[in-house]
Amino acid sequence: MRPMHHIISTREYTKEMFDEILEMAEKLEPIARGEFQSKIMDGKILALLFFEPSTRTRMSFETAMLRLGGQTLNMGSVEASSIAKGESLSDTIRVTSQYADAVVLRHPREGAALMASECSASPIINGGDGAGHHPTQTLLDLYTIKRESHLENLNIALAGDLKYGRTVHSLCYALSRYNAKINLVSPPELRLPDRIVDDLRKRNIDVTITSDMEDVIENIDVLYMTRIQRERFPDPAEFNRISNSMRITKELIQSAKPDMKIMHPLPRVNEISFDVDDTIHAAYFKQAFYGVPVRMAILCKVLGMEDKIEVKK
Amino acid sequence: MRPMHHIISTREYTKEMFDEILEMAEKLEPIARGEFQSKIMDGKILALLFFEPSTRTRMSFETAMLRLGGQTLNMGSVEASSIAKGESLSDTIRVTSQYADAVVLRHPREGAALMASECSASPIINGGDGAGHHPTQTLLDLYTIKRESHLENLNIALAGDLKYGRTVHSLCYALSRYNAKINLVSPPELRLPDRIVDDLRKRNIDVTITSDMEDVIENIDVLYMTRIQRERFPDPAEFNRISNSMRITKELIQSAKPDMKIMHPLPRVNEISFDVDDTIHAAYFKQAFYGVPVRMAILCKVLGMEDKIEVKK
Amino acid sequence: MRPMHHIISTREYTKEMFDEILEMAEKLEPIARGEFQSKIMDGKILALLFFEPSTRTRMSFETAMLRLGGQTLNMGSVEASSIAKGESLSDTIRVTSQYADAVVLRHPREGAALMASECSASPIINGGDGAGHHPTQTLLDLYTIKRESHLENLNIALAGDLKYGRTVHSLCYALSRYNAKINLVSPPELRLPDRIVDDLRKRNIDVTITSDMEDVIENIDVLYMTRIQRERFPDPAEFNRISNSMRITKELIQSAKPDMKIMHPLPRVNEISFDVDDTIHAAYFKQAFYGVPVRMAILCKVLGMEDKIEVKK
Repeated sequence: MRPMHHIISTREYTKEMFDEILEMAEKLEPIARGEFQSKIMDGKILALLFFEPSTRTRMSFETAMLRLGGQTLNMGSVEASSIAKGESLSDTIRVTSQYADAVVLRHPREGAALMASECSASPIINGGDGAGHHPTQTLLDLYTIKRESHLENLNIALAGDLKYGRTVHSLCYALSRYNAKINLVSPPELRLPDRIVDDLRKRNIDVTITSDMEDVIENIDVLYMTRIQRERFPDPAEFNRISNSMRITKELIQSAKPDMKIMHPLPRVNEISFDVDDTIHAAYFKQAFYGVPVRMAILCKVLGMEDKIEVKK
Repeated sequence: MRPMHHIISTREYTKEMFDEILEMAEKLEPIARGEFQSKIMDGKILALLFFEPSTRTRMSFETAMLRLGGQTLNMGSVEASSIAKGESLSDTIRVTSQYADAVVLRHPREGAALMASECSASPIINGGDGAGHHPTQTLLDLYTIKRESHLENLNIALAGDLKYGRTVHSLCYALSRYNAKINLVSPPELRLPDRIVDDLRKRNIDVTITSDMEDVIENIDVLYMTRIQRERFPDPAEFNRISNSMRITKELIQSAKPDMKIMHPLPRVNEISFDVDDTIHAAYFKQAFYGVPVRMAILCKVLGMEDKIEVKK
Repeated sequence: MRPMHHIISTREYTKEMFDEILEMAEKLEPIARGEFQSKIMDGKILALLFFEPSTRTRMSFETAMLRLGGQTLNMGSVEASSIAKGESLSDTIRVTSQYADAVVLRHPREGAALMASECSASPIINGGDGAGHHPTQTLLDLYTIKRESHLENLNIALAGDLKYGRTVHSLCYALSRYNAKINLVSPPELRLPDRIVDDLRKRNIDVTITSDMEDVIENIDVLYMTRIQRERFPDPAEFNRISNSMRITKELIQSAKPDMKIMHPLPRVNEISFDVDDTIHAAYFKQAFYGVPVRMAILCKVLGMEDKIEVKK
């Protein structure tokens, strides 16, 4: 029996490891679009254990599994489950991992996925564990950059909440494998932690830091926007001032390169003005779709089916 | 590529349009009953975005999709979704419509389905939008009348809450395509809006208005009962008096034609006495079942599979 | 048409009836493990009507159905369903049983399953009805004993809350068909009701009663532990004293037979110390898995497919 392949974090991924998954995703994209049918997961079950809601992540995982011919099994909400009776996470994992061929775990506690992988009867895919990791988000972000722009010699701006945004932290490390030039744009209160900036520079990554979008907008290939959460600011006026200063508007992007792409992990509230949606720059809805082929690739990887992917062209 | 076919409202449907769907439903009924298997939706995904619960509508849509060999994808409850984070309806639609081949949308706001159809990546089926429309209910009502009674020259009574009952409004317009004689039976407070009565009479429909069930019970072919909601009446005694006066009992229907059928969109509370359930007149549980073949027909229509329906006999 | 076969209670089951299901489960176990694929339920739908949450029961039923190639249909939570609008249980059953080939009903009210079986359009499987019955739990308990120990001449201890524990009551009656020696271990406040002890003795079952685990630990083949609920005790100190006295620890089981097995219906809180999990005695996680082949057997039984089971070896 081959050892179980869990997906806990992409922090230690090499370029080759990223590329393998991105290439599988590209091969699987026509199936994700429903243009070709696949039955390679026929008879397989993917369990979804979401200890906090994440509609987008859950639905794209379910779509990935169904489009590959497999089935899904939902734990449902925590309130309506045994956890409410005081069951430990490890007991829940030990039991439910026996019902499925793989498990996607979403949990508010950092480190939950790693812990789960130690007692699970089937492979664990980390669907986000609090301030910890969210590897499938990182992979779909990379895939979007590859499909909508380019990964090599990329000039990217990461904007918004760079302090608490787990998504952005993982993406930085991933981009460092591709020698990206990284521009950090955030209010001073929400700057990327020094520790990460240092790590990136040690890897010879060109990092710039600013709080003014205008400084970078003309030169970047990709603008990765994230949501600034109201609850980070005790003073509502301060929140309004800052979130307005970071807002992406049609006006702002007029000086951008014609093929500059805007990404956002969604949901957005008002970080990006709605009139940007219909411009050639908006890539955030496509990005949400790209979660499907990327999660398909991850399912194939985890279930040892890399060699069975076949797409009629 | 053929243009997307959304199902938003039946208000402008012609008799031919209604008949096409009713005939497809009749063809599909053996599959809905599980007597024959179908795989025509194999590989297809139906997303269910219910922004308010409607168990019956959701479950019959899911059954329809599964019996045709397709798969379903649930958004789950609003509380447990991105909407709670402040996402707009159009963003939710733009993202989730990419995960499925068709979307059923249930929403408390009038006009939500039309709006959704304007930004969706796949066909929208209106599963009820507040005071707006609920086209699949209208179609299953018509289908029930066709199967349990007859559509041409029908003599029907619509009873209960005719003022707020969206179901009844749409049914009136649909029945006008079949020259039905329509008897409106309601407490004066809950009469059908004048605007609709005028519309029907302009279409040469014979409309009578009463508040006494006894006036019509002997002559009708179908009695369509609806629920009167307690919250419409500030005075509980008033509610009790009125709802009792409208109640269908075994005694009341003794003077009805032997083949008179009683319909109700369900859930009922006590509008129909339980001892009516076992009479030959009760058609409301069958009506709930007929939602399955009708929704199958709608799925076939929306996915352009009208010509692929094949039922072994 | 064959009459509908409901599963309401195992109280009147003979040894032959138990054995038939246990043997089917054994045949189906490789499919439950995902080692072989099955499509015998292809095109069939199992509805899950859970009027109170029971994640384990629901998920193992869903797994059973999916592994047999069938599909599932969830009512969802009660709050989000028509029941909230005042619909009666019988109306809900009459409607939803038309959408599926079989229905699993979980309900907090004793007798709900029997009542449902009287108005359902498809077979009802009782997934637990309050203080009433939970036949699939009894069957999976028997199956676990058969697989992990032995059913004939069994020496078993039932421990914990024997007064309110429905699971234990049904298991006692089932074990009486196999002439088990039954040791009852509980605090005096939570003893097995006299009525059941009398019933067992009338069936010539050897029953001993104690409140001290030490009295029985050396001689038993199986220790069936149940949870003592905090809310049974007005005084928290009293609860702590009692629950500690009943706790299974690694120390306690040192004097047990080498092949003694510990079972628990789960979820556990702290009735069994976590360091017992890795001993050869722990059978409770396997027990949770055995719910899958047993529920598969029940589905086959209820849908009249006993003869279609085919497992490649």
